[in-house]
Amino acid sequence: MAKFDIEISEVGPRDGLQSISAIMSTADKMAWIDALVAAGIPEIEVGSFVPATVLPQLADTHQLVEHAKQYKGLSIAVLVPNLRGAQNALKTSPTKMSIPLSVSETHSLRNVKRTHKQMLEEVANIAQFIKSLPVENRPKFEGGLATAFGCTIEGSVSEDKVVSLAVALMEAGCDEIGLSDTTGSGNPAQVQRLIKKVWAEVGKKNLSGIHLHNTRGQGLANALAAIETGITTVDSSMGGIGGCPAAPGASGNIVTEDLVFMLEAMGLRTGINFDKLFEAREILAKALPNEPLYGFTPNAGLPKGFKYA
Amino acid sequence: MAKFDIEISEVGPRDGLQSISAIMSTADKMAWIDALVAAGIPEIEVGSFVPATVLPQLADTHQLVEHAKQYKGLSIAVLVPNLRGAQNALKTSPTKMSIPLSVSETHSLRNVKRTHKQMLEEVANIAQFIKSLPVENRPKFEGGLATAFGCTIEGSVSEDKVVSLAVALMEAGCDEIGLSDTTGSGNPAQVQRLIKKVWAEVGKKNLSGIHLHNTRGQGLANALAAIETGITTVDSSMGGIGGCPAAPGASGNIVTEDLVFMLEAMGLRTGINFDKLFEAREILAKALPNEPLYGFTPNAGLPKGFKYA
Repeated sequence: MAKFDIEISEVGPRDGLQSISAIMSTADKMAWIDALVAAGIPEIEVGSFVPATVLPQLADTHQLVEHAKQYKGLSIAVLVPNLRGAQNALKTSPTKMSIPLSVSETHSLRNVKRTHKQMLEEVANIAQFIKSLPVENRPKFEGGLATAFGCTIEGSVSEDKVVSLAVALMEAGCDEIGLSDTTGSGNPAQVQRLIKKVWAEVGKKNLSGIHLHNTRGQGLANALAAIETGITTVDSSMGGIGGCPAAPGASGNIVTEDLVFMLEAMGLRTGINFDKLFEAREILAKALPNEPLYGFTPNAGLPKGFKYA
Repeated sequence: MAKFDIEISEVGPRDGLQSISAIMSTADKMAWIDALVAAGIPEIEVGSFVPATVLPQLADTHQLVEHAKQYKGLSIAVLVPNLRGAQNALKTSPTKMSIPLSVSETHSLRNVKRTHKQMLEEVANIAQFIKSLPVENRPKFEGGLATAFGCTIEGSVSEDKVVSLAVALMEAGCDEIGLSDTTGSGNPAQVQRLIKKVWAEVGKKNLSGIHLHNTRGQGLANALAAIETGITTVDSSMGGIGGCPAAPGASGNIVTEDLVFMLEAMGLRTGINFDKLFEAREILAKALPNEPLYGFTPNAGLPKGFKYA
């Protein structure tokens, strides 16, 4: 029997910190990662291999991967924007490496100055580079479909395009696909529909994860919809940090603490302990004293009589 | 074809304002109700017939019912705690009248100083009083099962007790049952299970509504679970005001604005217009300048390309 029914992938150290102008010290990040691991978080996206000139907040990602390696069984995930980033990332042997491909080509051009064709070539080059490594050093290589539920520039996004790009990413050599609601535009019906459409073309085992933002408060409802459909890995961030700084007042990623409460209360095991999770939140709060932390469960506490799944 | 798929019952003027120490002026309340009606809200719980010494915030409920009567087709709901409250309420002929019965007897004793048996007798007396009225003056009489998903004093609540009290309320003369997650303890699996259990004993048509709190951030996910199960009326409050003042930092009721976004985006018609809904929120914000308003959709705005159901 697996250790958990739903795997939480904590993306705060990457998606959270990249959206915050304050730079968290490497020591604080390590203490936070240690506390997340102690709480039972099975996967942590520790950072991104982008130039430090672009995201100085994440310049120490290689150190964090090395630090996290002491935890056997922890899945250490990183994000890379291109081949060069991947080559840098692979020097540290992470467990999982994701590259985002924006379904909105306008967004892709504006964000990474690449067309879909160019991005798919980059993905193929990365996949080839991975194959040149010894098997034990090859990470799981994920193609993350960004803006899969809508784009702030293009507006609604064609579901057929999501599906065809998912197929193209698998053909280019990805091991699996992820769906990202980058703009927090998605709704539960759309989440269920899109997962099923992608599964029909790439197979259920090749899409297991979803990345949701809470821009319009739909995060947990969308997560529920995804889990009901059969998704088994959900990204979230402690305190909901990160996400979309363009939407004032909007928390970014879905909140790890509230997500874990939902799952455990529903009877779905996450392997996570709340006391230790709230301790990790304290570490985060102290390290980022000027950032609002979202989430209700840490304030309200667990209901009287609460039982883990 | 019905005007909407899901009926939003706005409980802000009652459940919201009763939790706030500031007293909103009657004129402000009327302007807010007017704006809610203009936005297309089909049901508004305008207040509660409790003694003004207990809830001075709601002392003008009778005036609000009279004011709201100008809107043909609007369902005007009120809450009553007992027979005396019901008799006062019925002088104004509301469309719907609810009485809460706490599934946790400890909570009932502490809150209204009555056992279940005493409350059921009160309900029967109210039902008899309603029958003495001309048919056109009889409201729909709802028994609201409070703390149906957990109690802050007793902890977890027996689902069999919820079901047996639902049956007892129907036998005492209620027209329908409502389920309330008073303490915000519920989770989606529990919501679906409990609705089905109550339906099995009282019939689907006699339980159509649910009242959820967002104490642990589960509000919209629980609403989604209820709607998927077949619930067609959902209580919510503008800006999430109200709910559980005991949980600091916790928004109270689920947020009307985010709920309506979820439903319309999913293709479920609510009859509500966002521009006018946000105008109503402005009125509320001005009337309660010191109260935090929750909800993400008003800040983020609708996604580009958004279409109503």
